[in-house]
Amino acid sequence: MKPIIQNFQVQFNYGVYFTEGLFNPENSMLKDVLQQDGNTAPRKVLFVIDNGVAEAHPNLINAISSYATVHADTLKQVAPPMVVAGGEVAKNDKQLMQDLLDAVNDFGVCRHSYLIAIGGGAILDMAGFAAAVAHRGIRHIRIPTTVLSQNDSGVGVKNGVNAFNKKNFLGTFAPPFAVINDSEFLLTLDDRDWRSGISEAIKVALIKDAAFYKQIKQNAEKLASRDMEAMQQLIHRCAEMHVEHIGGKDPFEKGSSRPLDFGHWAAHKLEQLTNYSIRHGEAVAVGIALDVVYSKLSGMLSEAETEDILVLLSQLGFDLYVPALAAVTDETDTKLHILKGLTEFQEHLGGQLTIMLLTEIGKGVEVHEIDGALVAKAVEELAEKQGQQAALTSNKA
Amino acid sequence: MKPIIQNFQVQFNYGVYFTEGLFNPENSMLKDVLQQDGNTAPRKVLFVIDNGVAEAHPNLINAISSYATVHADTLKQVAPPMVVAGGEVAKNDKQLMQDLLDAVNDFGVCRHSYLIAIGGGAILDMAGFAAAVAHRGIRHIRIPTTVLSQNDSGVGVKNGVNAFNKKNFLGTFAPPFAVINDSEFLLTLDDRDWRSGISEAIKVALIKDAAFYKQIKQNAEKLASRDMEAMQQLIHRCAEMHVEHIGGKDPFEKGSSRPLDFGHWAAHKLEQLTNYSIRHGEAVAVGIALDVVYSKLSGMLSEAETEDILVLLSQLGFDLYVPALAAVTDETDTKLHILKGLTEFQEHLGGQLTIMLLTEIGKGVEVHEIDGALVAKAVEELAEKQGQQAALTSNKA
Repeated sequence: MKPIIQNFQVQFNYGVYFTEGLFNPENSMLKDVLQQDGNTAPRKVLFVIDNGVAEAHPNLINAISSYATVHADTLKQVAPPMVVAGGEVAKNDKQLMQDLLDAVNDFGVCRHSYLIAIGGGAILDMAGFAAAVAHRGIRHIRIPTTVLSQNDSGVGVKNGVNAFNKKNFLGTFAPPFAVINDSEFLLTLDDRDWRSGISEAIKVALIKDAAFYKQIKQNAEKLASRDMEAMQQLIHRCAEMHVEHIGGKDPFEKGSSRPLDFGHWAAHKLEQLTNYSIRHGEAVAVGIALDVVYSKLSGMLSEAETEDILVLLSQLGFDLYVPALAAVTDETDTKLHILKGLTEFQEHLGGQLTIMLLTEIGKGVEVHEIDGALVAKAVEELAEKQGQQAALTSNKA
Repeated sequence: MKPIIQNFQVQFNYGVYFTEGLFNPENSMLKDVLQQDGNTAPRKVLFVIDNGVAEAHPNLINAISSYATVHADTLKQVAPPMVVAGGEVAKNDKQLMQDLLDAVNDFGVCRHSYLIAIGGGAILDMAGFAAAVAHRGIRHIRIPTTVLSQNDSGVGVKNGVNAFNKKNFLGTFAPPFAVINDSEFLLTLDDRDWRSGISEAIKVALIKDAAFYKQIKQNAEKLASRDMEAMQQLIHRCAEMHVEHIGGKDPFEKGSSRPLDFGHWAAHKLEQLTNYSIRHGEAVAVGIALDVVYSKLSGMLSEAETEDILVLLSQLGFDLYVPALAAVTDETDTKLHILKGLTEFQEHLGGQLTIMLLTEIGKGVEVHEIDGALVAKAVEELAEKQGQQAALTSNKA
């Protein structure tokens, strides 16, 4: 019998919006975004808030409630906002996702209702995964509150939680209904979270856009001293490049290449090796430093540009080295633990190992082999720069 | 700052193939399907088999193993096939999905590897969900073994498991890599499973294709007496219509309409009310009978066509009535429990209640209100036809 061939296209679109004071009753952005669905009745909405954000903005829950009252013709909260633990714990603790699913069930949140998450990348990833699988997908709006989530993780199409000690072992590709970046949330970030997301901007500039790199360099001092205008420029351009890249060849990553993961193979492993005591963005800065020095050592990148990048990272306050970088898998072995990150990266993505390196600032190139000994040399060089010794200590984390 | 607008399309395609004796070493179909990915190295493959199928085909696991040996250049089993409980338990027992995820992790199954599921619709739904969320999606091939899964559930783009006593509360839209229908699996079906899937063919014929309905009617005796050729014709046409419908306007069900769920709002509830002691296809036959009589009672469908459909269902061996149809929510209430299915259906899909009814054979029409009293009348009429009394007994399932 003749085969039946299925063939269809699905169109995905969403906006990344920028505002200040989203829940000021006179700010119509959220209302306008919700009304894009063309419904006339008030939409059922469930808010999920990162506990760090709720603490830093003690009036937030009241402000949301007032906003919902003023705009009662557009939205209706099905329950008070759920405040859940932020940071990596949101992706490690299965119960938190279960709590969200319970709420979806208890409050009759349907596919045309909204799960709106306010918080850092981890909360957005976890809530996004819950939204993606409940009823096979309810609408999800992301309100990222950190630099990292506003310029990178929050504006993309991926969600996920961790399992088996592996980052994002479970997740889906599910474009959000919309993303809203509110700069007010950046005001209360501690210095680490302010800085942390800048590494993703450096990453995308390094592999794609020398002019953007130059701009970051020019603004380095302002960024380090928390100049909001400089930060907003950086976030907008970084988010724009991220969105453009995703909308390009392979939005749902069917291939084996993931250029935006420059510096990430080591970063993911470092996060796990340090029990998530370093921020994702901090780990990415170390990962970038490592891949930059590795690029130099393998003869791809000039000494001068290598130095330029390392200086910029330091100037912004990033460490170039953390002791976990030199951890080995066990006492009898001298193999760096981070090298396992290569296998895990390949296993996650599938197919041939494909790692992005640099040939010059603004230009990445993909390679399919990484030399472990050269990585070890790069680690030593970074330790020296940081004024430390690369102690090959055992770490079985 | 200017919003950033994301806009991209994703192309999805897969084939539904028909064969006999898929694991006969000389049958190249599975090999050919796997080679569509363009890889040269052997693919990692993990098989998951419905225990009912493994019992009915005691040589299956050996046959798969021989097939993998003969075609070692194309595929490599990462582990012996996993045999898991089939039927609705596969979607109710969380541990079964967890076992699959454990295996994906243990055996390094990556995004470019294959999870191949062999079994009825429930196993395919559960394994498909595991495949969809592990590493954000590993390749999934479905080998449906029942009439229902070969002509309907197995050839679509949905997967899922049950939660909160609700069918498919969790799941995603994730087109399979391919679907392979092997008619040999139909030989060992018991009569209930042979018959069960015919109701989905009647469903799609009733709402879309009078000629197909006529064909089913002409073949009714053959189908009832297990004529394989008649069954294969029915499966092919039903699968074709299912695939065409999905590839049409709304593959991922963004809207509120789901025409292929004609007869299903009551069916899903009946399955749950009977603790899944009736098959999905049997419940759908009752659900169709109910919506057909309801269509007649509300003046849409002629007496003659109503009768014609009920006769056909009976002729094929379907019950038109089961006691659970008349169950009420509690002792003090006379409201039919199945009416809750309407709310749940709406909650799952979102937006306005949209139910398909019939105006004539081959022509469905969507309505947005259902009259509970008229449903009760339809239930009584079906009970009478079945020679039973519609006892309004309490059932709190």
